[in-house]
Amino acid sequence: MRLAELSRRSGVSPATIKYYLREGLLPAGARVSATQAEYDEEHLRRLRLVRALVQVGRVPVATARRVLAAVDDESAGQFDRLGEVVTALPHGPAPDDDDHATARARETADEVQRRLGWRAVPGNPAHQALVAALAALVRLGYPASVEDVMPYGRVAADIAEHELAVIDEFEASTTQLEAAVALTVLYEPVLLNLRRLAQANEAGRVFRIDAEAGD
Amino acid sequence: MRLAELSRRSGVSPATIKYYLREGLLPAGARVSATQAEYDEEHLRRLRLVRALVQVGRVPVATARRVLAAVDDESAGQFDRLGEVVTALPHGPAPDDDDHATARARETADEVQRRLGWRAVPGNPAHQALVAALAALVRLGYPASVEDVMPYGRVAADIAEHELAVIDEFEASTTQLEAAVALTVLYEPVLLNLRRLAQANEAGRVFRIDAEAGD
Repeated sequence: MRLAELSRRSGVSPATIKYYLREGLLPAGARVSATQAEYDEEHLRRLRLVRALVQVGRVPVATARRVLAAVDDESAGQFDRLGEVVTALPHGPAPDDDDHATARARETADEVQRRLGWRAVPGNPAHQALVAALAALVRLGYPASVEDVMPYGRVAADIAEHELAVIDEFEASTTQLEAAVALTVLYEPVLLNLRRLAQANEAGRVFRIDAEAGD
Repeated sequence: MRLAELSRRSGVSPATIKYYLREGLLPAGARVSATQAEYDEEHLRRLRLVRALVQVGRVPVATARRVLAAVDDESAGQFDRLGEVVTALPHGPAPDDDDHATARARETADEVQRRLGWRAVPGNPAHQALVAALAALVRLGYPASVEDVMPYGRVAADIAEHELAVIDEFEASTTQLEAAVALTVLYEPVLLNLRRLAQANEAGRVFRIDAEAGD
C-alpha cells in the first residue's frame, strides 16, 4: 500500500508517518519510484504500536525508538530482549536523595521482593522508581511499611502471571516482544484508571454511609 | 520557623519554596518583618505533599494547585470534595477518535463496571482514559475483551477497598483529603513498578524454562 492508504488505515496523518520514518520508529518502505514507496501489513502493525506508545502511553519518541530497537534486535535471547525492552520503557524518577527515608524505603522494597520470592534486581529502573515513591511516602508519614506494600506486591504478582501467559501465546519472538511492550504500556492506564474508578465507588460507599450516620 | 529551616527540614530549596508560594501551592507564612515570614508544621506538611506530587508523582504545578484548592475547599461535603480532588489529578488522554474501536472499548468499560457493581460515571476522566487505553488495545488486536479486563478490575476493587479503609482512619477531613491525594498519586508508581518487577521475575520463569526445554 502507498503512504495515503497507510495513513487512512492507521488513522495517523501522512506528516506524522513521515516524521516516524525520519526518526527511525518505522522501517522505510520499498522504493517503487523516486517519490513513492510501498508499505505492507508489517508497517501498519508497527505504526499502530508506535501510535499507541506515543499517544496513549505518552512514551517520548526517543524512548519509543530505543524500545523498538530492542524489540528488533535478534542477537540476544528472548529473556534478555524482554528485559531490555521493558527496561527501556519510561519509569518514574529514581531517588534524588540519599537520606534516612530512602534507606528505609530501600529496605522495604527489598523485603517485599524477598517475601514474594522475586530475585532482587537493584539496577532495574523499576526498583529505583519504587524506592523513590516509597521514600516520598515515608517522608510524608503515610503508610509505607512492608505490610502496607505487600497487598500491592501480591496483586502485581497475580497480574504479571496472567500477563506472561498471554504474551507466551504469541508465536514468533518479535511478535511476543511487541505484545510485551503493548500490554505493559497500555494496561498501565487500564489498571490505574480502574483503580481511580474503584476508589470513587468505594469512597461513595464509605463517606455516604458516614454522612447518613450523621458522622 | 524561618524559610531557611523550612528548606532544611523539607529538603526543598528556598528558591523552589518561593516559587511554590508565588504559585499559590503553599499558603503565605505569618509576616514577622518587612522581609521575613514565619512558617509552621502545617507549612512543612503541605510543602512535603507538594514536593511529592510534583517530583515523584510528576503532577504539573497548575494541576497541583487545582488539587490542593479542592483539598482546602471546606464548602462541600467529604464525598464531593474527594471526588473533586481525585478528578483534578492528571489522567491519561481521553479518546481522540470516535471510531469502531472506541465504541467497542466503551462497551467493554461499561460492562466491566456493571459486573463489578460500580455506578457508571461517564463524565469521569478516569472512565475516558480507560476507554482510550482499551481502544488502543482493540486497534492493535491485543486482548481487550470484558474477560481480559476483569482481572484488572477485581484487583483495582481490592486495592481501593484497602485504600479507603486507610484514608478513613485519618481524623480531620482535610487530613483525609491530603491522604487521599498522597496515597492515590504515590501508590501509582508503587503499583506500576511492582508490576514491572513482577513481570521481569515471571519472564525469567517462563522464558528460561522455554530455553531450557530447547523451545
